[in-house]
Amino acid sequence: MLIQGKHYRSIRLNNKKTGVVILDQRYLPFEVRFEELNTYKETAKAIREMHLRGAPLIGAAAAFGVYLACLEFRNLAEERFNEALENAISELYAARPTAVNLKWALERQRAALKKAPAIKQKIDAALQTAREITDEDAEICRNIGEHGVDIIEEISKRKQGETVNILTHCNAGWLATVDYGTVTALIYEAVKRGINLHVWVDETRPRNQGRLTSWELTQNNVKNTVICDNTGGHLMQHGLVDVVIVGTDRTARNGDAANKIGTYLKALAAKDNTIPFYVALPSPTFDPALEKGVRNIPIEERSANEVLKINGKGKSGREDVLLFAESTQAANYAFDVTPARLITGFITEKGVFLPQELAEKLEAREE
Amino acid sequence: MLIQGKHYRSIRLNNKKTGVVILDQRYLPFEVRFEELNTYKETAKAIREMHLRGAPLIGAAAAFGVYLACLEFRNLAEERFNEALENAISELYAARPTAVNLKWALERQRAALKKAPAIKQKIDAALQTAREITDEDAEICRNIGEHGVDIIEEISKRKQGETVNILTHCNAGWLATVDYGTVTALIYEAVKRGINLHVWVDETRPRNQGRLTSWELTQNNVKNTVICDNTGGHLMQHGLVDVVIVGTDRTARNGDAANKIGTYLKALAAKDNTIPFYVALPSPTFDPALEKGVRNIPIEERSANEVLKINGKGKSGREDVLLFAESTQAANYAFDVTPARLITGFITEKGVFLPQELAEKLEAREE
Repeated sequence: MLIQGKHYRSIRLNNKKTGVVILDQRYLPFEVRFEELNTYKETAKAIREMHLRGAPLIGAAAAFGVYLACLEFRNLAEERFNEALENAISELYAARPTAVNLKWALERQRAALKKAPAIKQKIDAALQTAREITDEDAEICRNIGEHGVDIIEEISKRKQGETVNILTHCNAGWLATVDYGTVTALIYEAVKRGINLHVWVDETRPRNQGRLTSWELTQNNVKNTVICDNTGGHLMQHGLVDVVIVGTDRTARNGDAANKIGTYLKALAAKDNTIPFYVALPSPTFDPALEKGVRNIPIEERSANEVLKINGKGKSGREDVLLFAESTQAANYAFDVTPARLITGFITEKGVFLPQELAEKLEAREE
Repeated sequence: MLIQGKHYRSIRLNNKKTGVVILDQRYLPFEVRFEELNTYKETAKAIREMHLRGAPLIGAAAAFGVYLACLEFRNLAEERFNEALENAISELYAARPTAVNLKWALERQRAALKKAPAIKQKIDAALQTAREITDEDAEICRNIGEHGVDIIEEISKRKQGETVNILTHCNAGWLATVDYGTVTALIYEAVKRGINLHVWVDETRPRNQGRLTSWELTQNNVKNTVICDNTGGHLMQHGLVDVVIVGTDRTARNGDAANKIGTYLKALAAKDNTIPFYVALPSPTFDPALEKGVRNIPIEERSANEVLKINGKGKSGREDVLLFAESTQAANYAFDVTPARLITGFITEKGVFLPQELAEKLEAREE
C-alpha cells in the first residue's frame, strides 16, 4: 500500500537476499523507518518486541527467519545444521504465543525443509517457502477485499449512498499483513469503487495500534476518526456505526475468534444494538486443531510497563511517559476471545461464511 | 480520606472564609497540589478544566462558587447584585453539561438566596447552603458505604473468605466527592471490616481517571491493579471479577445511568458473564425530571486533544505527548448511558434498590 504516495510491502527480501527489510512499526506514525533483519535472532526479537505485528505479517517474518537461520548455519555439518535449525524454529515459535500463523508458517517451513535432500536445497526451499507465504498472504488479503466489499456495498445501497460508518479495533491493516491488510483490504476496495465511507478507529490500548490504522488509512485517502476504546458502545447506541469489522489472531473450529484485547466488548455492543459484526479471516489464521476458543486459546500476558507507560511525541522528540503513580500494579492481557455467537460472519479469501460453516468451508480448501 | 496518612477533604473553606481550597487533580497522581479558588470565575474554570471532577464534588464546588460570587458582588446595589448573581449561576451551570448535581446544587442555592431578605443574609445563606451540601455529601457517601458493604460481605462469605475481585471504571472515589467517595466508600468500609478484596481499576481513557482511583486506593491501603479499558471483558470471561461497581453522573427515573464513557461496555460484559453490576448513586445524582436516559441525557463532547495527547511524567517532568500522527481527527464523547436492564441494583444512601424501584424509593425521601 501507499506511504506518501509510493507503494511498499511491509516485508521484503533485500537485494542480496541476505536479509529482510521491514517497516519498524515502533516508530510509526511519527517516523517511517525501515529495519534490515540479517539473522533469525534479530527476526525473533523483531517479532517479540513488536517491530512488526499482526498475525499474517508475523507468519511471513517467521518464515523468512527460518531462511535466515539456514543461511547462518550453511557451513555446519548436516546433523548440526538440522539441530541448529530446530532450535531456531523453536525460538521463533516462542516469540509470540497467540498468533497461529506463526505456528502455521513454521510448520510449513519444516515440511519444506524435510523434503529437501541437502543443505543447499534446504536454503533454496526455505527461501521459496518464505516467498510463497508472503505472496500468498498478499493474494489472500486481496481476495478478502473482493469478498468483503459486497457487505459494504449493500449497506451503502440501503443507506442510499450516505456515508457507511465502519468501526474497527486494533490494526488489521496492511501493516499487519504483507499488503492490503485484512479489514482494510475491503475498505480500500470499497473506496476504489467510489463508496462513501468513514472509519471509526479504536485507539486500542495499551499499544495504540489505532494510530497505525489511522495513519495507514490517511496515507491511502480513507476518511477516519480516532476514538478511545471506551467510545464504540455509545456510538452504536446512537446509530453512528453501520458495521464492525475486526481482524483475528487465531480462530477456533467453532468460530470463537481471538483478537486484540477489547474486541469482545465491541462484539457485545454490536449484538446489543443489532449491528453486524464481521471478522476478516485469512485462512492460515484458522486453527483446525482447536475445537473451541473461549477457554482454550492461550492468551499472551505482556509487561505491565506497556500499560503504565506510553510512547508519544513530546517537546524533545519521542519519549516514554509514565501514566501512573510510581509502583502502581498493572496487568496486561494482550488478547481476548469473542464467542462465535456474537459474530455475524467471517470474511475469508474464499467467501463470507457463518461461524458454523467456517470449518467445513475452509477445510474444503485443503482437499 | 488519607493522603500520606493524613486526613483531607477534597474541598474546604479557607480559614478567612474568603475562598475554597481544592486538591488540583490535574497534578495527581504525581504531585499533591492544592489550589485556592477566590472568585466564582475561578471556580467555574476549575470545574470546566477539570481541576476537580466527579458529579458530587462538582455540585459542592458550584455551591461554593455561588458563595464566592455573593462576596464579590456584596457592594453592588441589590438589583445589580441579583442580576450579577444570576449571571454567575448561569456561568457555573454551563461549566459541565452532564452532571445533574451541578444543576441540583445551583437550584438549591437559588432557593436559599431567594428566601434571604437582603445581601448580608444572602451571603450567609449561600455559605450555609454550600456547607450543608458538602457535609451532606460526606454523610451520603458514608451511608452508601454502610449499605453497599453488605454486597461485598455476601460475596466474601460465598467465596469462604477468598479475595473478592471488584472491577470499577473511572474514579467514583473520594476525589470525586467531598469524602469517602461513592464506590470507594463501600470498598473502604469492607477493608475496615477485614474483608479480603482486590480492585481492578480501569485506566479510563481519555483522561485516565483510573490513575486517581489507583492512587487513592493505594493511599488508603487497598490492593488494586490497573488495567486498560479493553481488559474487563476478558477478566470476566475467566472468573476474575466477582462484581462490577461504578458511579454515575446522572440517573434517569427508569434507572438508565449516565457515567464515564465505556461504562456501558462493562455492563454488557457483566451481563454476558452473569456478574452483578451495581451503580453507587448518591440521591442528588438522581434526576427525577428525566423519564429515560439512553436517548435523553445530553452527552458532553470534549476536545479532540484529550484523545490525541496524553499527560504523563517524562524525563524532564510532566508533559503532554502527542499519541497520533499530526492532524489526526478524533472524537471525544465524555459519557455513555447504561440502560437500566443491565443494572443489578443501585447502592444509595437510603439502601440498595432495583432499577424499577429507584424512583419510588428516592422520591419517598422528599416527602
